[in-house]
Amino acid sequence: MSADASLHEKRLAALAETFASHIPFNQVVGLHFRSLSTERCELVFKMDDKLVGNYVQGILHGGVIATALDVAGGTMAAAGLIQKHGDASENDLSIRLSKLGTIDLRIDYLRPGRGQEFCASATLLRAGNKVAVARMELHNENQELIAVGSGTYLVG
Amino acid sequence: MSADASLHEKRLAALAETFASHIPFNQVVGLHFRSLSTERCELVFKMDDKLVGNYVQGILHGGVIATALDVAGGTMAAAGLIQKHGDASENDLSIRLSKLGTIDLRIDYLRPGRGQEFCASATLLRAGNKVAVARMELHNENQELIAVGSGTYLVG
Amino acid sequence: MSADASLHEKRLAALAETFASHIPFNQVVGLHFRSLSTERCELVFKMDDKLVGNYVQGILHGGVIATALDVAGGTMAAAGLIQKHGDASENDLSIRLSKLGTIDLRIDYLRPGRGQEFCASATLLRAGNKVAVARMELHNENQELIAVGSGTYLVG
Amino acid sequence: MSADASLHEKRLAALAETFASHIPFNQVVGLHFRSLSTERCELVFKMDDKLVGNYVQGILHGGVIATALDVAGGTMAAAGLIQKHGDASENDLSIRLSKLGTIDLRIDYLRPGRGQEFCASATLLRAGNKVAVARMELHNENQELIAVGSGTYLVG
Repeated sequence: MSADASLHEKRLAALAETFASHIPFNQVVGLHFRSLSTERCELVFKMDDKLVGNYVQGILHGGVIATALDVAGGTMAAAGLIQKHGDASENDLSIRLSKLGTIDLRIDYLRPGRGQEFCASATLLRAGNKVAVARMELHNENQELIAVGSGTYLVG
Repeated sequence: MSADASLHEKRLAALAETFASHIPFNQVVGLHFRSLSTERCELVFKMDDKLVGNYVQGILHGGVIATALDVAGGTMAAAGLIQKHGDASENDLSIRLSKLGTIDLRIDYLRPGRGQEFCASATLLRAGNKVAVARMELHNENQELIAVGSGTYLVG
Repeated sequence: MSADASLHEKRLAALAETFASHIPFNQVVGLHFRSLSTERCELVFKMDDKLVGNYVQGILHGGVIATALDVAGGTMAAAGLIQKHGDASENDLSIRLSKLGTIDLRIDYLRPGRGQEFCASATLLRAGNKVAVARMELHNENQELIAVGSGTYLVG
Repeated sequence: MSADASLHEKRLAALAETFASHIPFNQVVGLHFRSLSTERCELVFKMDDKLVGNYVQGILHGGVIATALDVAGGTMAAAGLIQKHGDASENDLSIRLSKLGTIDLRIDYLRPGRGQEFCASATLLRAGNKVAVARMELHNENQELIAVGSGTYLVG
């Protein structure tokens, strides 16, 4: 592995650690990373009573789904920044990452959010100098597609 | 007040009670109604450490904003159902409401979610037999517009 | 081929004929079908001076892209109706198709619309009794992904 | 009127002239400005056989509506640039305007596009250094709200 690739991986690992452990609302939902590369990420979380939106049917709240998909998309926007600025100092990169923000988000709710464990995945459709666009999906443990989304992120 | 208007108001009050007290994730966010009519609703919630998305800046998580706007829009879709089926039995209305669901949601994040108290408001743009469309806004206590959204709901 | 499959294909062919030849604005853009099945459709159109949006750069107008993606998504919503109501009479199906309409549409513009020939493709993400959701893509002749979209259609 | 305000108005007038006369697809739809300020714009166009999407009902094609709303939103993004860079040279402003582009667009189709004359209006929700967000509406000559939209534009 080249030094660069190694630096890259360390930074992605640090990103995953930050997102999962230092963002309070991500901990409320119970998000943690199953995988993260510059190509794709997978975030998982377990069904929990407090995440329910329709108490008759016992399904995920739409806001939980939006949260997981926004975080997955934002993670890829951050991963794109890490890749694009591979030679930036730790401090410079940290400043860039702290400015990253969601511009807009669309979620299509396709099926009721039933299941025991959910996986929010994302890939980048556009990794520009100012704006990144990600496409996201939410599956349950039976690989049923529950929701898809599209998010635009400011990365400049 | 006519008997109908009175029944109407009782049902809206019951709806508000259900949304605020019986939907677990709404309680996580701390949503409660400031007002609810067939024209418009306002849901408020207070800033709280656990709702933070960017711990450096101390601003609301995008998923919290999406949650509040989705609930505000869904409330208006439900209020539209109550108005449209004014002569339905309690049971019939209850079945209709339990089937109500978000089809899709768009959120535009306009400004960082800074503040002490937030208000998510919604009005209906379309109240059809199968589909309702709501427009939503999130303001902080200084009346700064933090986000807007648009949601499509299945009400048939 | 079974009689049903044959009826199916005839109806899809009639749908393609209607969309390409009897919808005036589709003719303005020059849309015609490369393929259409119940799984997926591909609509193609050629670059033309009148379709330009940025005359300095000579690229497609965003409205042309939105048009092509909306038609591709709507076609799949119609194809879903044809499949779901396989035993309906010609007249019944025709009434259903005439009521089909776009509820909402999101387009992400990923790259400038440069090229000689463009292909708008669509697949169904959801084929419900009242609502269909399609995902769309626009490529140029070099297989560059120019735009993606998501559309919700009323099919009830 | 101050010299600046006068320069401002000249540049807005030049912008309107460019959008209406030098963008081929805007001419296909027949768009022209009724008004344009840094606060708001109104674009009008007349019903025409070639703009029809549903030939049974004789209503506007969804792509025509998307076109008009995208142009209205993009105009406000451009007007925001003109305001923000009030002291820029003609050449510098022209370069900035030529780079302006739609990042994404959402349209909600609320009512069938019936009427004789349509007005697409837009206001800015966000006028940042890199990204502008506009909210758009389409009315017919009876002030019926036919569609609303939201667009994100790259202006950096």
